[in-house]
Amino acid sequence: MDPFVVVGGDAAGLSAASKLKREAPDREVVVFEKGRWVSYAHCGTPYYVKGEVDSLTDLVSLSPDEVAERDIDLRREHEVVAVDPEDRVVVAEGPAGRVEQPYGDVLLGTGARARSDPIEGADLFGAFTLHGLPDATAIRAFVDDGFDPETAALGPMSPDEFRRHADADPPETAAVIGGGYVGVEMAEALAAHGIDVHVLQRGSHLLGGFGAAVGEAVADELAAQGVTVHTDTAVEAIEGEGRVERVAFEGGALDAGAAIVGVGIAPNTALAEDAGADLGPSGAVAVDRYGRTSVEGVYAAGDCAESRHVVSGEATWVPLGLTANRAGRAIGATLGGDPTPVGGVAGTAVVKAFDLGAGRTGFVSESAAREAGFDPVSETITAGSRSGYYPGAEETTVTLTADRGTGRVLGASVVGRDRAAKRIDTVATALGSDTTVAEMERLDLAYAPPFSPVWDPILVAAKVLRDRV
Amino acid sequence: MDPFVVVGGDAAGLSAASKLKREAPDREVVVFEKGRWVSYAHCGTPYYVKGEVDSLTDLVSLSPDEVAERDIDLRREHEVVAVDPEDRVVVAEGPAGRVEQPYGDVLLGTGARARSDPIEGADLFGAFTLHGLPDATAIRAFVDDGFDPETAALGPMSPDEFRRHADADPPETAAVIGGGYVGVEMAEALAAHGIDVHVLQRGSHLLGGFGAAVGEAVADELAAQGVTVHTDTAVEAIEGEGRVERVAFEGGALDAGAAIVGVGIAPNTALAEDAGADLGPSGAVAVDRYGRTSVEGVYAAGDCAESRHVVSGEATWVPLGLTANRAGRAIGATLGGDPTPVGGVAGTAVVKAFDLGAGRTGFVSESAAREAGFDPVSETITAGSRSGYYPGAEETTVTLTADRGTGRVLGASVVGRDRAAKRIDTVATALGSDTTVAEMERLDLAYAPPFSPVWDPILVAAKVLRDRV
Repeated sequence: MDPFVVVGGDAAGLSAASKLKREAPDREVVVFEKGRWVSYAHCGTPYYVKGEVDSLTDLVSLSPDEVAERDIDLRREHEVVAVDPEDRVVVAEGPAGRVEQPYGDVLLGTGARARSDPIEGADLFGAFTLHGLPDATAIRAFVDDGFDPETAALGPMSPDEFRRHADADPPETAAVIGGGYVGVEMAEALAAHGIDVHVLQRGSHLLGGFGAAVGEAVADELAAQGVTVHTDTAVEAIEGEGRVERVAFEGGALDAGAAIVGVGIAPNTALAEDAGADLGPSGAVAVDRYGRTSVEGVYAAGDCAESRHVVSGEATWVPLGLTANRAGRAIGATLGGDPTPVGGVAGTAVVKAFDLGAGRTGFVSESAAREAGFDPVSETITAGSRSGYYPGAEETTVTLTADRGTGRVLGASVVGRDRAAKRIDTVATALGSDTTVAEMERLDLAYAPPFSPVWDPILVAAKVLRDRV
Repeated sequence: MDPFVVVGGDAAGLSAASKLKREAPDREVVVFEKGRWVSYAHCGTPYYVKGEVDSLTDLVSLSPDEVAERDIDLRREHEVVAVDPEDRVVVAEGPAGRVEQPYGDVLLGTGARARSDPIEGADLFGAFTLHGLPDATAIRAFVDDGFDPETAALGPMSPDEFRRHADADPPETAAVIGGGYVGVEMAEALAAHGIDVHVLQRGSHLLGGFGAAVGEAVADELAAQGVTVHTDTAVEAIEGEGRVERVAFEGGALDAGAAIVGVGIAPNTALAEDAGADLGPSGAVAVDRYGRTSVEGVYAAGDCAESRHVVSGEATWVPLGLTANRAGRAIGATLGGDPTPVGGVAGTAVVKAFDLGAGRTGFVSESAAREAGFDPVSETITAGSRSGYYPGAEETTVTLTADRGTGRVLGASVVGRDRAAKRIDTVATALGSDTTVAEMERLDLAYAPPFSPVWDPILVAAKVLRDRV
């Protein structure tokens, strides 16, 4: 059988490659990666910029040598330019020119890219997106005066580019454009370097998908930590002569020596489209429950592909790390002879904002739930994180949303200072099995004074919401 | 209608009373409590002994005045001596003598008592159980040299008894007999007072119900904190002239100036039995899904009553705070016209042992699962609590048990230093809906570097166990 060929050496691609080699060691596996770095943790880059993670190599979960040890034929700096499903050939361009690689099955793990297109001036020196190690290295070199230049030798970006960023004066003020989780994480990262940080958010609250209660709590925390939050602020352009000097928005402008554009990402679908694969309603690659695209022998997984939402049952696009890892692993298992669904997603996410943690899952806002065809009702409560008399108890705010007719739990968010974020897993787990609010109220969750009040905040939310469904 | 009468003014009783008054304000509610204190947090007493909780009153979630504000007729220092279901009358003895109180419905919330009977000498001065505020006050007065004597005026115990304990020399060495969670919590509490603490455990590991992996991790933590753990040590007697001087076990003895007996509790069922109510297989009061005993008009809830186990579907006895609160509240709702099941239990519990947290739910050990009629298979894994590169990541150990034939998850335990304990809620939630290991592996749990690795430790356990079911 022709090899299993993977396009993109990151979470989805290498999970699939590794799993298949484990299940079917005789099957040849080839991975093309256009960059030099494989299998690195996107989600860790803000902490690298902050300086909490020392070295780029700490972010790599699997080195090229480790990939080779798994008997995976990894070809870095090879950009795949075409997938021909008729002849079952992948065409790549590498340092030694054009390569044609026959395949039996191919996985597109082409990922996503940061969007900067809505913002004019995003190509100025001092303006960045954050999507990948070159971006992270550039930002850290730019903002961190004591930054160790040996990172240049590791080569995620060209030595000239690196030098240019390292030599520039660090900015005194930075504008973070977009208050989603990259924006919130970058605000914390930049503030750690003593920079005066401003977050400019188009919408009325930060972290749109987490609901208003979380957005407001996070804005309060950012303000308390010295970060200025501007909501309802639509940025029009980044301006400056040769480098970023100012960010202009409707009705005003902010002087800033750096701008981080975090206004969302878009799936890399060109290769899939060229191969004839259908896109789904979200614009990402449509796949079935085993990760198969509409083209025979072509799979897609990770940030370029859709998933099935466990609450709505519909296709959705939630580009997150666990989804990519799991889908890749499932595809590897399926190809190895153990048919394994890629699994649904609930859109579960957590984010740290200084001393605050926040989580979300499913449909939090009533408007999103209504769009998905439900008749939502929602309650927001605040309860203690521990027994009130136990030291360290902090307020935990939970928003719980359910369907009025059936009582089914649709989603939730949580925010607080004391281990709040991971409490969202209770709701994420419940979403997988059509749990009702009444059933949630009766969950036997863990109680002991150092960890929870008798009624966990999630249970308190269920108690209050049950009276309304 | 005759009043709703509650026997026992603690979690179950006052939850029922409060809920009924909210749902049906016109219904008269009478609560008899034999002591002076109502609605206090049993689970907080170790932290009061430790000194982390300053005042006894901090442990009270509802003061007598607050109970009165809810229009509940609370009669403290009234011990109910009989329930006559024929005439629907409760007989109590109070400061002013015998009272006969007619009832429409009665709830027995008589709780449980600490067992000390297996240990000879448990009545010596310096030997204690820990079940209620008098015990907690006595121990704290005994071990804490700087203890504020105003607590005497609060009166959980007689002034003479209080004085006797406060005046005695604090012990240099204490023996904690029993390594369940009271034992583990008391070891930490006593060590905080500079006492040389020894835990004597009959079984081969601490925290029997949490499984061997947790027991061993907790024993290591206790040892690292200076507490000596003696496993496989069956205590025979507490010995001394007038006060505790020594604890004798098979093959040896330990000099100790204090002994805490934490060898389990027993349900207070005498009143229920006298009223003709059936006991269940566990020896606690048998109830149906609405908390009704076998006698019409007589309910039971809290530590004196059984519950239905969500995994086995069988009656079980799990005397814990949330169970009591929830069952009481459900009975109040049912009597108020909204029939509400008391809910099942999964036996979920968490415990703090110095810097370690541990949790358990369902059937952890294969032998317990086998007894319940399953064909169990179990795996123990260790994974990070956060992304490996993120500061503060700690090992988290998970034991996951499933039924081989059906793949159904039966239970789990977890232990670790970094927010490990509450991760058990994921499994507790899954147990409520017959989740299989394959389904658990596909749960969309929250991931971000500060809170979890991509694969949460619970998911890692499911991945590994799935290969074996």
